[in-house]
Amino acid sequence: MAIIECIPNLSEGRRPDLVQSFVRTVRGVSGVRLLDSSSDPSHNRSVLTMAGEAAPLKAAVLALFGEATRSIDLREHRGEHPRLGAVDVVPFVPIEGVTMTQCVALARETAAEVAARFEIPVFLYEEAATEPSRRNLEDIRRGEFEGLAAKMASPEWAPDFGPARPHPTAGATVIGARMPLIAYNINLATDRLDVAKKIARSIRHSGGGFRYVKAMGIALEDRAIVQVSINLTNYEETPLHQVFDAVRREAERHDVTVLESEIIGLTPQAALVSAAEHYLQLERFSPSQVLENRLREAE
Amino acid sequence: MAIIECIPNLSEGRRPDLVQSFVRTVRGVSGVRLLDSSSDPSHNRSVLTMAGEAAPLKAAVLALFGEATRSIDLREHRGEHPRLGAVDVVPFVPIEGVTMTQCVALARETAAEVAARFEIPVFLYEEAATEPSRRNLEDIRRGEFEGLAAKMASPEWAPDFGPARPHPTAGATVIGARMPLIAYNINLATDRLDVAKKIARSIRHSGGGFRYVKAMGIALEDRAIVQVSINLTNYEETPLHQVFDAVRREAERHDVTVLESEIIGLTPQAALVSAAEHYLQLERFSPSQVLENRLREAE
Repeated sequence: MAIIECIPNLSEGRRPDLVQSFVRTVRGVSGVRLLDSSSDPSHNRSVLTMAGEAAPLKAAVLALFGEATRSIDLREHRGEHPRLGAVDVVPFVPIEGVTMTQCVALARETAAEVAARFEIPVFLYEEAATEPSRRNLEDIRRGEFEGLAAKMASPEWAPDFGPARPHPTAGATVIGARMPLIAYNINLATDRLDVAKKIARSIRHSGGGFRYVKAMGIALEDRAIVQVSINLTNYEETPLHQVFDAVRREAERHDVTVLESEIIGLTPQAALVSAAEHYLQLERFSPSQVLENRLREAE
Repeated sequence: MAIIECIPNLSEGRRPDLVQSFVRTVRGVSGVRLLDSSSDPSHNRSVLTMAGEAAPLKAAVLALFGEATRSIDLREHRGEHPRLGAVDVVPFVPIEGVTMTQCVALARETAAEVAARFEIPVFLYEEAATEPSRRNLEDIRRGEFEGLAAKMASPEWAPDFGPARPHPTAGATVIGARMPLIAYNINLATDRLDVAKKIARSIRHSGGGFRYVKAMGIALEDRAIVQVSINLTNYEETPLHQVFDAVRREAERHDVTVLESEIIGLTPQAALVSAAEHYLQLERFSPSQVLENRLREAE
């Protein structure tokens, strides 16, 4: 059985009945499990985390597009978080028994159907991107809904599917496939923000560090400490332990110690098992040796 | 939903059709999942690993007793592994959403019913034991089937349930509750068996070491290295990382390095997550942050 995760981001976080109605829509699709839903009123945005096989997930995404297109008007939407569309971004993430290639195919099929049914332009991103300049969500979203008509007037920003102009109320949408993302923070036993910033720069890809690390140094003022706040975009290629050990070594150079680390939200089991394997020097270990995995296989 | 593991050990490992029939019996009980079955002809013994909730597991165990009592005659049983009965030992192990106390209650109920239905004497062991001298399986089993009638003639070895003498063909049986056991080996980059033996002695409970560690030093002659072979009987109280770090430190004292470690068979996910938490200094982590766990919760 394949397990794909899908995390639609919707531009509505202030009307609870509307968010509840999105949740009911997902719950109503057989074969889709809703793992989490969170709304941020200041962002005016909701994030649904769901999982299932390809066909039911696509059905759930299409149902959400129908509902969001009817009920959200981007011309009147205000919020702190950048956004292009009523359904702003939809990543598909391979979890188990499924390849990235299959998730890319699912993203493209879903994109084609969204464009055809709702006349919404769709950009493909990350692993599903059709050219390197469209891999990064930030690049596609730059200018936001308000700048979208002007941006799309340039042939460089012709959509991958759908009309060459924004939908009048639903804008445009970004659909793609990516690895699971781990939000990982490492807290330092110091209040020296310059140290956190230096360490963040040394480990992040844009600073010449690890390929799948985004990082910044921030102050946790209520605790009088600083944090290296990390997004790990591919834990298979850049594992947790590699990042943790690098931060610890860099901190030592500044005479600072690591206080603790924390994972925010969800992580695949494999990211933790891989850390255990590394530090315990475990060899010949297979995921099917995890009792809970065996239980699921036996279902 | 509660998940209990149950691992009946049966005194039959040479007649494949009989073993197959035990497997079919377990598979026929709704609510029970068979995770593994393995037979050893030289031991003349089979081990079934199954999981489920209390009621279906009890039903499966009773069905196995019925079948084993009909088909196994201990008077004619030969094998290298010590044994007392046709169904030799049945541990219940708490995995998820269930306490040890509930597993002890399940062991006692099952024991009472086995004794009543099949007139087989039952000894309770480990966490279900009624006195300290019966906690260890080895102590109950000492003398084996052949010495059982004489042993049970002493009031000290009156069974916890059932008749005060062995069943003529099925002997006696041992039922209880225990923590999951992890078979964990640490291989050393040396062929010095004395070092492996010394380290094993220093970490095992009987040598003054960790409370939940059984260990011995053995030679892996085909690889020309030695191994500290460990049974970890409670990974919550004596975690993997504590054992690994202790072996590494002891090895250093003998100028020997740890080559690798390995887990044989199954391990609960929590044992690995706990190692990751330790080495990554992870704080505020909850098992419900593991994506696969969240998926099961949402089922």
